[in-house]
Amino acid sequence: MRNYLAEFFGTFWLVFGGCGSALFAAGIPDLGIGFVGVSLAFGLTVLTMAYAVGHISGGHFNPAVSVGLFVSGRFDAKQLIPYIISQCIGAIAAAAVLYVICTGKADFVIDPNAAGSFAANGYGNLSPNGYSATAAFLAEFVLTAFFLIVILGATDKYANGKFAGIAIGLALTLIHLISIPITNTSVNPARSTSQAIFVGGDYIPQLLLFWAAPIAGAIVGGLIYKTLLEKK
Amino acid sequence: MRNYLAEFFGTFWLVFGGCGSALFAAGIPDLGIGFVGVSLAFGLTVLTMAYAVGHISGGHFNPAVSVGLFVSGRFDAKQLIPYIISQCIGAIAAAAVLYVICTGKADFVIDPNAAGSFAANGYGNLSPNGYSATAAFLAEFVLTAFFLIVILGATDKYANGKFAGIAIGLALTLIHLISIPITNTSVNPARSTSQAIFVGGDYIPQLLLFWAAPIAGAIVGGLIYKTLLEKK
Amino acid sequence: MRNYLAEFFGTFWLVFGGCGSALFAAGIPDLGIGFVGVSLAFGLTVLTMAYAVGHISGGHFNPAVSVGLFVSGRFDAKQLIPYIISQCIGAIAAAAVLYVICTGKADFVIDPNAAGSFAANGYGNLSPNGYSATAAFLAEFVLTAFFLIVILGATDKYANGKFAGIAIGLALTLIHLISIPITNTSVNPARSTSQAIFVGGDYIPQLLLFWAAPIAGAIVGGLIYKTLLEKK
Amino acid sequence: MRNYLAEFFGTFWLVFGGCGSALFAAGIPDLGIGFVGVSLAFGLTVLTMAYAVGHISGGHFNPAVSVGLFVSGRFDAKQLIPYIISQCIGAIAAAAVLYVICTGKADFVIDPNAAGSFAANGYGNLSPNGYSATAAFLAEFVLTAFFLIVILGATDKYANGKFAGIAIGLALTLIHLISIPITNTSVNPARSTSQAIFVGGDYIPQLLLFWAAPIAGAIVGGLIYKTLLEKK
Repeated sequence: MRNYLAEFFGTFWLVFGGCGSALFAAGIPDLGIGFVGVSLAFGLTVLTMAYAVGHISGGHFNPAVSVGLFVSGRFDAKQLIPYIISQCIGAIAAAAVLYVICTGKADFVIDPNAAGSFAANGYGNLSPNGYSATAAFLAEFVLTAFFLIVILGATDKYANGKFAGIAIGLALTLIHLISIPITNTSVNPARSTSQAIFVGGDYIPQLLLFWAAPIAGAIVGGLIYKTLLEKK
Repeated sequence: MRNYLAEFFGTFWLVFGGCGSALFAAGIPDLGIGFVGVSLAFGLTVLTMAYAVGHISGGHFNPAVSVGLFVSGRFDAKQLIPYIISQCIGAIAAAAVLYVICTGKADFVIDPNAAGSFAANGYGNLSPNGYSATAAFLAEFVLTAFFLIVILGATDKYANGKFAGIAIGLALTLIHLISIPITNTSVNPARSTSQAIFVGGDYIPQLLLFWAAPIAGAIVGGLIYKTLLEKK
Repeated sequence: MRNYLAEFFGTFWLVFGGCGSALFAAGIPDLGIGFVGVSLAFGLTVLTMAYAVGHISGGHFNPAVSVGLFVSGRFDAKQLIPYIISQCIGAIAAAAVLYVICTGKADFVIDPNAAGSFAANGYGNLSPNGYSATAAFLAEFVLTAFFLIVILGATDKYANGKFAGIAIGLALTLIHLISIPITNTSVNPARSTSQAIFVGGDYIPQLLLFWAAPIAGAIVGGLIYKTLLEKK
Repeated sequence: MRNYLAEFFGTFWLVFGGCGSALFAAGIPDLGIGFVGVSLAFGLTVLTMAYAVGHISGGHFNPAVSVGLFVSGRFDAKQLIPYIISQCIGAIAAAAVLYVICTGKADFVIDPNAAGSFAANGYGNLSPNGYSATAAFLAEFVLTAFFLIVILGATDKYANGKFAGIAIGLALTLIHLISIPITNTSVNPARSTSQAIFVGGDYIPQLLLFWAAPIAGAIVGGLIYKTLLEKK
C-alpha cells in the first residue's frame, strides 16, 4: 500500500502545485508568475516528490509514465492499473481542494468555453493560443515520448541515477515552457482528467486526446529507449 | 549553542532574503522580479543555508518544521522551544535590518491597511489578491503538510539524502509560486511574526492563523509521512 | 550506432525544446516566457539529455562542442564527422516537426526579413536587437570559448564530474541570458542550420558566421583549457 | 600559475555573463530578462565556473571572498594579493570585451550620470532605485557577510561539499534578487571596479564603498562562521 499512497500524494502535489500556481498566480497584472512560473511549478512538484517518495513508489505520478515504464520493461504489469487509479484519485482530490480555495475569492467563476479554464487542457477553441487538434496531438505525442526517454535514460543503471529527480523534474519544466500555449500542457492524463471534470463542457470529450496522445508518446518513447539506446 | 546560532542565522537569511526581495525588487516597473523572483528568493534562502549550516542544526529555520519533525519522531522535544526562540529572534533581527535599509529610500512608508505591506502575511482585506480566511487557512494547512512530507521523505534514510537541500529549498519556491496571491505565503510562523510586528494594525490579530495553520499542517504532514509512507 | 542515435535525439531535443519555446511561448502578451524562459529551456534540453544519454554518447549535441573536445584531446577524430552529421540531422528533424506544429495555428507565417524569424540566428538587420556582424562574431566566439572551458573543466577527472550535466546545461542557459538580443544565440552550428533552412533569405548566407564563430571559439576554448588550465 | 589563470577566467566569466546579461538583455521591452534574469546570470557564472575550475583555484572570483577565506583560516596570506590582482584583471578584460560588443549597436552610449550605467554599482543618485549611501553600505555589508557564511558552511568538511558549487552560485543569484535595486549589487569589488572605470564620473569615488562594504562584510562573515558556527 505504501507505493500506492506515494503515487496518490505525489500526483496530488503535481496537480495542486502545477495547476494551483496557474490558477492563483499566473495572470495577476505586473507581478504574476506567467507561463515561466507555472512551468517551474510543475517541474518542481516532480523534482520535490521524486526525492521525497521516489524511493517508495518510483515516482511516476502520471499514467503515461507508468505505461511507458511498463512497455520498456521497467515496471510490473500487475501494478499498472492500481498505480493509474492512485494517480487519478490523487489528481482529482487535489482539484477538489483547489476548487474550494478558489471559491474563497469573491469573483471566482469557471467558464467551460474559455481556453485554460480551471487550468484544464484543450485544443482548437480551447487551446490557450489557438492550436489545432493535429498540432496538439503532435506536441503532446513528441513531448511525452522525449519525457520517457529522459526518464529511462536518467534512471539507466549506467547513468548517474541520483540526479534523476533533477533531470526528470526539470524536463517537465522544459515541456511546459514549450507547450502551455498549445494545449496548456498535459503529457499526463491524470492531470488532464482532474481539471476537465470540474470544468465540463467540451473539455470532457477533448479528454480523449489527452489520454491517447501522452500514452501513445510514452509507448513510442519507451520503445525508442529500449530498442535503440539502452545497452544490451 | 552552535545549533541555536545556526537556526538564528538561517532564519535571519530566510526573512532577509525572501522578504527583502519582495520589499526591494518585486514591484519595480518593467524590470521587477515579481512573484517568480520572490518565490525563487525564498527557496534559495533555504537551499543555501541547508548546505551551509544543515550539518550543524538540521536546517529547520521554521517553527512549523521543528514541530512537524518532533511529531514524526525526528527531533528531540527538549530542543523544540529553544529552536523556535532562535528562529523567531533571527526573523525579527532580519526584519529590523530590512526596516533600516528601507528607510534609506525617501518615499518609504508602511501602511498597515494595505495588503502585503512590509511583506507581511494576511487574509481577507490583507490578502494580496482578496482570499478569505477559510481559503487562507486551507492553503497554508495543505502547503505546510506537503512541505513536511517533502522534508521527511527527502531526508529519509532510504532516500538520496544529499539532495535534500535542493528538494526542500525548491519545495519552498514551489509553495510561494502557488500561494503568494492568497496569503503572501507563510508556512512559517517566525517569518509571519517578524513582519507583522513592524506593520501592526490588523496584521497582529491575523498572526493567529499564521501560527495555527502552518503548525496544524506540519503535524498532519508529519503524521502522514510517519504512519502511511515511512518504511516500518 | 547507439552513440550516433543519442546525438540525434539529444540535438533534436535541444532544437525542439529551445527553439520551440521561443516559437510557441516567448512573445505571448502578459503571460509569455520571454528571453528568460527561452534561456531556461535551451539549458534544460542539455541538462536533461546530459543525464539521459550522456552515458551513451558523451552528450555533445553541438558540432562546435565536438570540435572543441577533439582539439583538447578528449574526442576521437574518427567520430567527428559522424557526430556532426547526427547532430545536424537531429536538428533539422526537430525543425521540421516544429514547422508542422506551427502550421496548426491559423496566423502562422515565416518572414525571412524579420529578425528572429522561426527562431533563426542572425546579425545586422537580422539581429534581434540590431547588433553588427562584428559584435555578433565576437559574442559567439567568446561565449563558445567559455562554454568549452566549462565543459572541459566540469568533466575533468579532478572535478566533481557527476555535476557536469548541471553545470553544462546551466552554462547554456547563462549564454542565452546574455546573447539572445545579439544573435538570437547560436554557439551551435547545427541549431543555426536547422532554423535557417526553413526561413531562407539572408539567413542562409549568414549561416557562415554561425559555423565559423562557434567553431573558432570552441577551438580557442579547448586550447585554453588544455594548455593553461588542465593539470599536466 | 594555473590557479591565477583560473581566477582570471572565472572572474572574466562573472563580469562578462552577469554584467553582459544586464547590458544586452535586461531592459528590452516585453521580452527582456529583467532583474530575475540578471540575478540568474550572475549566479550561474559562479555555479558553472565553480564546477569548471573550482578544483584548480578554489573558485573565489571575488576579492572579498578571498579576504573572507583568509580571515577564517581557509586561504593562505601569500596568495591573497596575486588572487585579487588576477580577479581584477579578469574583470577589466571582460568589461573591455563587453564595451566592444556594445559599440556594435548604433545607439549605444554610456551616461556617467545615469543609475546603472554600463551595469556599474552606485548609491544615492546612482542607485537604481534611489537608496542612500547608508542603506547601500548596510545591504552590501550584510549580503557579503552571509555570502561568506554560505561559502564557508557549504565547503565545511562536515558538509556535503560536492554541492557547494550549487549552493554558492545560487546564493549569488539570491543576493542579486534582493539588492539590484539598491546598489545594482556588488558584493564583489573586482566587478564594481571593472564597470566603474569604463563609466567614470561619480562612479569612481563611489568605488570606495564597493571595496569597503563587501570586504568588511566578508571579514565579519568569516569571523562569524569561524568563531560561532565551525566545529572546534
